[in-house]
Amino acid sequence: MTSTPTPLTQVDPARLTEVLDGRWAHVRRDAREKLGTAHYATVHGETMTEARDRATRLAADLATTGTVAFGYPRAYGGSDDAGASVVSIEMLAQADLSLMVKAGVQWGLFGGAVQALGTQRHHDEFLPRIISFDLPGCFAMTETGHGSDVQQLRTTCTYDPATQTFDLHTPHQAARKDYIGNAAKDGRMAVVFAQLVTGGQRHGVHAWLVPIRDADGNPMPGVTIGDDGPKAGLLGVDNGRLSFDHVTVPRDMLLDRYGQVAPDGTYTSSIENETRRFFTMLGTLVRGRVSVGGSASSATKVALEIAVRYGDVRRQFSTPGEEREVVVNDYLVHQRKLLPALARSYAFSFAQEELLCTMHDVLGAEAVDEGAQRELESRAAGLKALQTWHATQTIQLCREACGGAGYLQENRLPGLKADTDVFTTFEGDNTVLLQLVAKGLLTGYRDAFGSLDGWGKAAFVAEQVRETVLERTAARALIQRLVDAVPGREDDVPFTDRGWQLKMLEDREEHVLEGVIKRLRKNAATHRDGRQFDVFNDVQDHALKAAEAHMERIVLEAFVAGIERTADPAARALLSRVCDLFALTTIEADKGWYLEHSRISPPRAKALTGAVNELLAELRPHMRTLVDAFAVPDAWLNCAILAEEPRRQETMAAHDSTLRAQGTEPQAEETATDLELAPAQ
Amino acid sequence: MTSTPTPLTQVDPARLTEVLDGRWAHVRRDAREKLGTAHYATVHGETMTEARDRATRLAADLATTGTVAFGYPRAYGGSDDAGASVVSIEMLAQADLSLMVKAGVQWGLFGGAVQALGTQRHHDEFLPRIISFDLPGCFAMTETGHGSDVQQLRTTCTYDPATQTFDLHTPHQAARKDYIGNAAKDGRMAVVFAQLVTGGQRHGVHAWLVPIRDADGNPMPGVTIGDDGPKAGLLGVDNGRLSFDHVTVPRDMLLDRYGQVAPDGTYTSSIENETRRFFTMLGTLVRGRVSVGGSASSATKVALEIAVRYGDVRRQFSTPGEEREVVVNDYLVHQRKLLPALARSYAFSFAQEELLCTMHDVLGAEAVDEGAQRELESRAAGLKALQTWHATQTIQLCREACGGAGYLQENRLPGLKADTDVFTTFEGDNTVLLQLVAKGLLTGYRDAFGSLDGWGKAAFVAEQVRETVLERTAARALIQRLVDAVPGREDDVPFTDRGWQLKMLEDREEHVLEGVIKRLRKNAATHRDGRQFDVFNDVQDHALKAAEAHMERIVLEAFVAGIERTADPAARALLSRVCDLFALTTIEADKGWYLEHSRISPPRAKALTGAVNELLAELRPHMRTLVDAFAVPDAWLNCAILAEEPRRQETMAAHDSTLRAQGTEPQAEETATDLELAPAQ
Repeated sequence: MTSTPTPLTQVDPARLTEVLDGRWAHVRRDAREKLGTAHYATVHGETMTEARDRATRLAADLATTGTVAFGYPRAYGGSDDAGASVVSIEMLAQADLSLMVKAGVQWGLFGGAVQALGTQRHHDEFLPRIISFDLPGCFAMTETGHGSDVQQLRTTCTYDPATQTFDLHTPHQAARKDYIGNAAKDGRMAVVFAQLVTGGQRHGVHAWLVPIRDADGNPMPGVTIGDDGPKAGLLGVDNGRLSFDHVTVPRDMLLDRYGQVAPDGTYTSSIENETRRFFTMLGTLVRGRVSVGGSASSATKVALEIAVRYGDVRRQFSTPGEEREVVVNDYLVHQRKLLPALARSYAFSFAQEELLCTMHDVLGAEAVDEGAQRELESRAAGLKALQTWHATQTIQLCREACGGAGYLQENRLPGLKADTDVFTTFEGDNTVLLQLVAKGLLTGYRDAFGSLDGWGKAAFVAEQVRETVLERTAARALIQRLVDAVPGREDDVPFTDRGWQLKMLEDREEHVLEGVIKRLRKNAATHRDGRQFDVFNDVQDHALKAAEAHMERIVLEAFVAGIERTADPAARALLSRVCDLFALTTIEADKGWYLEHSRISPPRAKALTGAVNELLAELRPHMRTLVDAFAVPDAWLNCAILAEEPRRQETMAAHDSTLRAQGTEPQAEETATDLELAPAQ
Repeated sequence: MTSTPTPLTQVDPARLTEVLDGRWAHVRRDAREKLGTAHYATVHGETMTEARDRATRLAADLATTGTVAFGYPRAYGGSDDAGASVVSIEMLAQADLSLMVKAGVQWGLFGGAVQALGTQRHHDEFLPRIISFDLPGCFAMTETGHGSDVQQLRTTCTYDPATQTFDLHTPHQAARKDYIGNAAKDGRMAVVFAQLVTGGQRHGVHAWLVPIRDADGNPMPGVTIGDDGPKAGLLGVDNGRLSFDHVTVPRDMLLDRYGQVAPDGTYTSSIENETRRFFTMLGTLVRGRVSVGGSASSATKVALEIAVRYGDVRRQFSTPGEEREVVVNDYLVHQRKLLPALARSYAFSFAQEELLCTMHDVLGAEAVDEGAQRELESRAAGLKALQTWHATQTIQLCREACGGAGYLQENRLPGLKADTDVFTTFEGDNTVLLQLVAKGLLTGYRDAFGSLDGWGKAAFVAEQVRETVLERTAARALIQRLVDAVPGREDDVPFTDRGWQLKMLEDREEHVLEGVIKRLRKNAATHRDGRQFDVFNDVQDHALKAAEAHMERIVLEAFVAGIERTADPAARALLSRVCDLFALTTIEADKGWYLEHSRISPPRAKALTGAVNELLAELRPHMRTLVDAFAVPDAWLNCAILAEEPRRQETMAAHDSTLRAQGTEPQAEETATDLELAPAQ
């Protein structure tokens, strides 16, 4: 059923690295050169105190390397390059994830909020010290009581014209700020999000720049600082809790780009609608989510490199009668674990690159294009969800693929796993984010700010579905051409036909989305008693499936566009096979749906498994190349088995061959290579 | 499509606890009473040194409680109760997993090996001090170089008649003992597994009792002790490495129940065949694997209790227009995550209980029944694999279900996750274990010891498949009756028909197994060039699927048998619905296979999703009951959010209602409850 277009030849990993590095290749190379040393590598087995101290020190060191300010205006030593600012964070994720988060908090969230929500006077006064890390700060948004419902924050900040100050207050314990990075130890100021009240009227969530510690490091009057204590990972990040007991905040500390309070308390804003204003403010912070998704993928590559390289030297069982040395990567089931994960990581690299480009262009545009911004937010949300779940699953899989060795901290995988684990729920809970994507799809991006106030009430426009689905991401013309070229009798189309693969993902997205719309309409008609919650909740699983299908289609299209940009023919051929594996394992993973909807016949579904296995065999010799292409600096890998195992296995092989020569090895007939019992503790 | 047999009424959790506690209920109750205090609960945020010291102290304390010796002969203070010995370990897994592993190493593996492989003189001399923890010891089997290939251990122990001693030697670094619990700090002796050589002849793997530290805690001459250092979890367990440089071991330290060396070096054994002897020796150690699977499930229950109870108080978004308080457990997707996992945990409880009974009876039998022993090993291997993967996935899911709070150590989930993670690869790598199950199935347990020496050579007897598959586990007659009662036109059978559910799992097992056999035969015919490795490797994924299908069928049958034993009608009805959920989500998860093989029609496959969602709605009010039934002592939960969150949410609700009364709450029209952006750090 598969046709093998071009037989694969050996590929120079550097050719792949060029493609993966993409538009910000210079930033990635720069990071590898300047930071690719043991100094910035993670340290295994630290206590929380040690880890926090090191992260603080390294953040200060990092500030001197010229790799933290890309996103800031040139006037403050930056380069106005939003894409580069995210890429520099992604690179840190391969070195040390605590440092990555620490940097993300300081220069992404805290500094980014001052830049995006503040005005000239805030920039002049604070940005230089933020960039130099002389002013460590916090991004105090999340509250203990309501994680995801940011618009309903309970903290209030009430203006008093008499004193021309604000009164910042935490009304109860559930309203305290929680999980705030830099809060427990380092932070001197915080950007605090709260409900602005002036003249007895609420104007929604705004942000203030609030000192939380004095020069000696003691909490400011009225500020209570708690410590979130030890976490699953990210021990170097000092997450904490902040409560405010009627803290006085000067009027000019309101970050007032989108909403201003005059000395007499008059509120003004260029965006009249409160909800719209809220989302415009949040929209400027999209970089955080893009950074987290990208960093998750970045860390996943390190795990894959460790598992693949170990699997290339590790022997499992003696294999009598075999001339070759069988290593664990030769086992089909091992390939079944590692290679599809590797292919998906490649796919995400291209999707993230595309997202970075979009983000860079949208944020850098002269005029705000609300449609483009909404779409960017949706993509960022969806890709963050997919990438972080992929990270959690893949790093787990790599840990298991390395057996007991994968459980030792000296082999890096435990740290990668524990540190990235929180990514699935921070910067937006993945489930909530996919819901956001689903809602974007359902409203077809139409009337974006007006009609999103309730599931039941939204107008679902079926005709728009097809248009929304077909709205292309990249290589638009090429993809349309490929899809159009798929012949009618799909059972005869080779699995490696790119047009067929694209069409399969596109059809699924369209069909699932239509199904959700039909059910929502029906629900809205039957739930006329006002139980709005149930209208959507009944189809929540279905809606999330639509979001996932949408994102997977976008990811595949980005992969196709990436191959199109690849100049080297051998690299291109290899990427094309990796793309086949991504597409086919994605379809295979959801074959229940395809069969249920007669999009694939039972015989073809069975043949698909064989086709995937053939691809695995074809890609087996290139596993090492595919991870070498990630170009992770050696110092960052920091993994004992990669250093020791090849030597150990050589000694063992030599010793075995001596035994064989002496005839003291047990006979092949006597062994029971198939009954492997491995009690260990 | 679903028929709802009995509407569910409120169930007293205690009625469920009785059923879950099973045959060793007295041991479980005893553990809750004697050990259910903060003293034995885990401590969050310890350093490795603190954790190790505490584990050592607690192990010593534990030895005084009368809960560690169940498995030993009455002569030494035990009760000859193998089942109870495993149950007591399972209970510890809810309190503190380091302590559970520490206890498992000392009284299960180390003491168990002395008991099972040694003879009277070893028992008299060592068992009392082992039981009292005055003699902490190690089980030194695994070597660095070859994790799972235990029969090919490289360590040698060579007898010299001149001195009447053995010479224990580690030939190279890959042969050092690794991941050995109790080695790095506490162990005074170790049961060391090595190749026995006498008179220039190898006789396969045997075990010796070898002192590794002197009275002052220094390594014995020739013994090198290393430390595996910090791990992902289980910080309290001092895993280490042992190397032996021609260490002299007295002749009588050979644990010689199954193989003896006379003073002149003559080797004797009651079991002539070396492979068979090896597996008989290992077979006595099956308890370890049963303990690990059971402990994994035990810990998973703690995680589920935390997530379910938190989900019952946690609100996500304000839900304007709703009279009720919507909590996260009300969301369909949240139920879709937690409830099937909960149902699977119930299923495993019953399967583990059945395995415990079988183990207890087989190990306690007067005469050794090799067939029964092999089947026990296969069940233990398969159930351990399924239970430990379920633990890893479910604890992860619970962590995510608790959002940022789930990432804080004070909320227990990080510890549960990190500590149980290694279970998927220790006491046998899960993939290797499932392979073992597959091989057992393929040979139909026939000629067990003779024909298992190679995949290509094994005789595959298709006629035996049906017989093997249908070999029943429990409630034999009942299950057959239910299956036989399923009418021909399956599309009309309600999803809740137990016979249909059983038949679906049974048919799948049979069909997958037949498929593997066909492919193996074909492979064996075409790979006549002797590439034996490829014969099996080509179908490895297919064979593992057969093993999983086999185990899932066994688990469902155990669940059915468990319901049969339930006296209380309300409890029985609830369990029956939970069993439906387990069966239907198991089928749903593999619906691709069922559709591909026309075992289910596309319309029925679609309806299945709806049936599962209906079950979720029905079980929603009973979530709390289902976790309360686990009867985990409060002191063991050790989770901050369970103590604080209800209070916090109450305060918040009260505060909100004040705001509403004052009219200062934003209008429902203004909110955007559907666009939840939650940047956090």
